[in-house]
Amino acid sequence: MTDKKAAVLVAGSWGTALAVVLAENGCSVTMWSRNDGQVSEINEDRTNGRYLPGTTLPERLAATTDMEAAVREAELILFAAPSSAMREVAAQAARYIKKDALCVHAAKGFEQVTLKRMSSVLAEELQRPEEEIVVISGPSHAEEVVRRCPTTVVVAAQSQQAAEKAQDFFINNYFRVYTNPDVIGVEVAAAIKNIIALGAGLSDGLGFGDNAKAALLTRGLAEIGRLGSAMGANMLTFAGLAGVGDLIVTCTSSHSRNWRAGSMLAKGMALEDVLHQMGMVVEGVRTTQAAHALAKHYDVQMPITEQLHAVLFEGKPPKNAVENLMGRGRTHESEEVAKDWSPHQSRPPHI
Amino acid sequence: MTDKKAAVLVAGSWGTALAVVLAENGCSVTMWSRNDGQVSEINEDRTNGRYLPGTTLPERLAATTDMEAAVREAELILFAAPSSAMREVAAQAARYIKKDALCVHAAKGFEQVTLKRMSSVLAEELQRPEEEIVVISGPSHAEEVVRRCPTTVVVAAQSQQAAEKAQDFFINNYFRVYTNPDVIGVEVAAAIKNIIALGAGLSDGLGFGDNAKAALLTRGLAEIGRLGSAMGANMLTFAGLAGVGDLIVTCTSSHSRNWRAGSMLAKGMALEDVLHQMGMVVEGVRTTQAAHALAKHYDVQMPITEQLHAVLFEGKPPKNAVENLMGRGRTHESEEVAKDWSPHQSRPPHI
Repeated sequence: MTDKKAAVLVAGSWGTALAVVLAENGCSVTMWSRNDGQVSEINEDRTNGRYLPGTTLPERLAATTDMEAAVREAELILFAAPSSAMREVAAQAARYIKKDALCVHAAKGFEQVTLKRMSSVLAEELQRPEEEIVVISGPSHAEEVVRRCPTTVVVAAQSQQAAEKAQDFFINNYFRVYTNPDVIGVEVAAAIKNIIALGAGLSDGLGFGDNAKAALLTRGLAEIGRLGSAMGANMLTFAGLAGVGDLIVTCTSSHSRNWRAGSMLAKGMALEDVLHQMGMVVEGVRTTQAAHALAKHYDVQMPITEQLHAVLFEGKPPKNAVENLMGRGRTHESEEVAKDWSPHQSRPPHI
Repeated sequence: MTDKKAAVLVAGSWGTALAVVLAENGCSVTMWSRNDGQVSEINEDRTNGRYLPGTTLPERLAATTDMEAAVREAELILFAAPSSAMREVAAQAARYIKKDALCVHAAKGFEQVTLKRMSSVLAEELQRPEEEIVVISGPSHAEEVVRRCPTTVVVAAQSQQAAEKAQDFFINNYFRVYTNPDVIGVEVAAAIKNIIALGAGLSDGLGFGDNAKAALLTRGLAEIGRLGSAMGANMLTFAGLAGVGDLIVTCTSSHSRNWRAGSMLAKGMALEDVLHQMGMVVEGVRTTQAAHALAKHYDVQMPITEQLHAVLFEGKPPKNAVENLMGRGRTHESEEVAKDWSPHQSRPPHI
């Protein structure tokens, strides 16, 4: 894998980390950003200090504010915009992209209002078959990837050929890439785990402890599984890297933005102040709104999403929300996973 | 739940924490220990400093070295001995136990050599139907339980009546108890997660990072599922509190003995010195031997167990073992969970 051209839109933490991987794999990478200052910093100082402090960017990586220049010759386009900006960025890139360029996204959320998954949004804007859109996800803090810590991720596409092309671009000795045909499962897991991470941050911020957090994550995995199953995902995806793997790393690592936002909310900070202080997109906040709507649409129980929605948008005190989730006052309940299991079903109703 | 009598054998960390829960729920609890000094400390100082430093034990909790006195009138017997001592403790208690006493165990391991699960060992020694033996497990550090941190656990028995009786004894506002009929799944998960925790400790001790640890846990869950499935467990148990829940808390919390032992091994300490310095049973070490044998017996792939076995008993350097687990050098692999899935199977082969 040498001398290939890749474009990365835009230059956030995760996009930059993946751009570094591509550059180290021999690609010439052009990052696109609207921000003049950021582009100059990347080209002149070889840093992207706001998003990946302490990282020196490789020589094969440049940046530009010119979308056409970024994508025109690229054989791989990595869409790493926040989900709220994805449609606009894709629309802007669409007319310059080579017909046979591989389109991969790394976003973790749904489109607001339409509630669409990112691969659908990209397929629409790029006027390509949805089968060929690839999503990359898994337990992968950007900060560790640029330090070459061993990391494993999943690339998912309905087209095995597309997934394997993406795998060839990204795989190396410290960045292991596995394919998975279940795009829906990977996209749902990537989005919802940020809500669970907000909840884990609340629980930790309130001092509930590791036992409580582990119970919350277990119920979170079930919640991801219920929504995913209703949307057509393969339940086993949630037992994999993009499911439980990403859930664990997002909820238990101090690198996680969503976890940090939750822990700040627990201390009594207002949502607005938390977002201001973070200075970066906290996907879980918008995703809570989208998932709340999706739960209604698909008629699935999502208690953690419901409680987070109440905390974020209805003024519910975090302590009450977490206590509600601990399920006080119930007796003779069997475990959720046991209760819903019936040997007569050919497939479990949720994980 | 008042005025009931319970016995707890023996007085380790987890047994003591569960004894505190029973006492706070109104039971008169007698703990049995062979250790005169520990019995005096519990009765006179109301502490069990070696196992639960900083905890004041409730008045309704006493200790004795007299097995008959401990169990004779008890309606609940909690067997909280290490798995290596379970048969002997059960044999000693058997002749004094009331015929209709509920027998619950809290051990996390297999019997060496026979490779039997603890509920089988208890059924044999107590000469009772295995259906009536209850196991209690879940994400529950003893240190947090005695601080009344919200905790959720599972009680599993083939007999629903037995499981619900156990639920009634243990449940309260901070200690939530759910029933699950899958004893095999709960016992296998409880045992194997300690091996994964040793591996997570190795990975963390070597500085591999959170991404690597999350990948290891994901593969660990698959490994638990493969062995459990071969032994007859319900796969969904591994997605529940006793499965992924306990795995997460054991591998990501500084309270975990097995994790700490792994991290000490990573620093180059010999196994003997680690065990000496811990001063408490590290179940994962013996369980690695048992699971290594079970993997052969049931012909299932257990790569983490295999690498841990090589580190613990065959002199393999921890770094090589963790690197082997990261799967360097492979290409075009699909994700394990995706690869093994076939829609024609009525049940997934492993999680």
